[in-house]
Amino acid sequence: MRSTKIRLGLVQQSNTDNIRLNVDKLVANIEWCASKEAQLIVLPELHNSLYFCQTENIKNFDISESIPGYSTKLFGNLAKKFGVILILSLFEKRTFGIYHNTAVVIEKNGSIAGKYRKMHIPDDPSYYEKFYFTPGDLGFQVIRTSIGNLGILLCWDQWYPEAARLMALAGADILIYPTAIGHFVSDTNEEKKKQKNAWIISQQAHAIHNGLFVTAVNRVGYEVDHSNRYDDGILFWGSSFICDPQGEIIDKASDIREENIIVDINFNKQKKIRCTWPFLRDRRIDAYQNLICRFID
Amino acid sequence: MRSTKIRLGLVQQSNTDNIRLNVDKLVANIEWCASKEAQLIVLPELHNSLYFCQTENIKNFDISESIPGYSTKLFGNLAKKFGVILILSLFEKRTFGIYHNTAVVIEKNGSIAGKYRKMHIPDDPSYYEKFYFTPGDLGFQVIRTSIGNLGILLCWDQWYPEAARLMALAGADILIYPTAIGHFVSDTNEEKKKQKNAWIISQQAHAIHNGLFVTAVNRVGYEVDHSNRYDDGILFWGSSFICDPQGEIIDKASDIREENIIVDINFNKQKKIRCTWPFLRDRRIDAYQNLICRFID
Repeated sequence: MRSTKIRLGLVQQSNTDNIRLNVDKLVANIEWCASKEAQLIVLPELHNSLYFCQTENIKNFDISESIPGYSTKLFGNLAKKFGVILILSLFEKRTFGIYHNTAVVIEKNGSIAGKYRKMHIPDDPSYYEKFYFTPGDLGFQVIRTSIGNLGILLCWDQWYPEAARLMALAGADILIYPTAIGHFVSDTNEEKKKQKNAWIISQQAHAIHNGLFVTAVNRVGYEVDHSNRYDDGILFWGSSFICDPQGEIIDKASDIREENIIVDINFNKQKKIRCTWPFLRDRRIDAYQNLICRFID
Repeated sequence: MRSTKIRLGLVQQSNTDNIRLNVDKLVANIEWCASKEAQLIVLPELHNSLYFCQTENIKNFDISESIPGYSTKLFGNLAKKFGVILILSLFEKRTFGIYHNTAVVIEKNGSIAGKYRKMHIPDDPSYYEKFYFTPGDLGFQVIRTSIGNLGILLCWDQWYPEAARLMALAGADILIYPTAIGHFVSDTNEEKKKQKNAWIISQQAHAIHNGLFVTAVNRVGYEVDHSNRYDDGILFWGSSFICDPQGEIIDKASDIREENIIVDINFNKQKKIRCTWPFLRDRRIDAYQNLICRFID
């Protein structure tokens, strides 16, 4: 049903305010990964543009697009040309007033295998996503492809063990997190280190708890804050990585430079770990009802 | 309602087949922690005896005890004497044929504040707990004490994000994991390292995901396997630790020696982290129903 071994390509990229140039660079990076025989290539979250959510500005809705649309056609042609599966992350316009942060899986024949609409939407200083994105309404479904079932989640989802677990229960063979996360320039070095460590640990834990390979693909580099706070902005921390079902980091990208990573994974490792660490066997599903509570008070 | 700052004492101990001597050592360790003004002292899982679950032997049921009983009385007197809260971990006899792996919280006046019966029961080579312990039937309830709400969980529970989350939703101020985990002597050094790292990462993630201090208190040292496999046995890896609500390790014990750790924690840190990383705010409780499924097939 699925491949035992697959070769992944992770594209860690920095962007400018020129979407055309960003897309050209994505195309070149995909081409490079394909030349290294990657079969599944993952792009970072909202890869066509700057991370526009640093400010709330209705002009930004102009760069949203339909699915299918411009990007699925362009990258669909590329997927077909190279015979690779592509994970896109788009600013989806569903109708005026309803927009989503949506990942799209393109099959190697260029068709849309499925999409995932980001379920957990952040809203923190400089990450004003609740202004732009309606929370996803497709749930936590795996996307079936020619090389296996992909559990696609997006950025803020990475802090939620529920999301990872639901993808595992739905039969995911791997968890994939396109993401856009960074420090404030003004954070102390100690705080920067703590935040990035927590981000890595959180996702390693999803791998361990669910016996799954996990990969996170982040953008990298500085993007200025175009709101009134010109003195700050986000330093996207890169550090895209993949870890095995025991949480061990197999490969990791730079925290400051653009970089593509090519990595082979073998699903036999997952099979072994799921048997030696049989966590799914012992879940107390008779006692988990309160997980659908906001708080027990 | 609760203290802002508390001082914890973690007792990492090795045991022999002489329960009397083990208890004497526990008493001395508690006394030492109390002399350092610890207010809450945590003992490792099944601290009175060897880790008898390495083999399935009905003679081992003879060391089970009622709650209240021998240990709650002995340690209750000690808690009262020193004015400290104690976390015990006992082999509970409920009736003939129903035994539990049970943690008991003793208030500083010597009374029983509450108990937690281990919900997730392992069964792996040398950890034959399903033979001894009926799965807990008290659910994931916090135990209210004079210094705050304690989320007590035990060993195998530490691999389950559901358990940590349910304790957080029930209002836990801290997660406490008495545990008994180690390597096989015959494991490779690489495998030993991976397992211990995964164990730490898993619990750091509970801290991060729930904005809670987390502590794990493990036994340490070698215990022979008394079944037919005399060539192996478990090397309990110690490494008891406490981490903050960002998952950062505050203090950690030796992986080979007995050691008591005294550590101060400040709940103001939790308050701050819960606001800057507001994960609980954005849980998609409308989309988590499938968490009570075994598998979605």
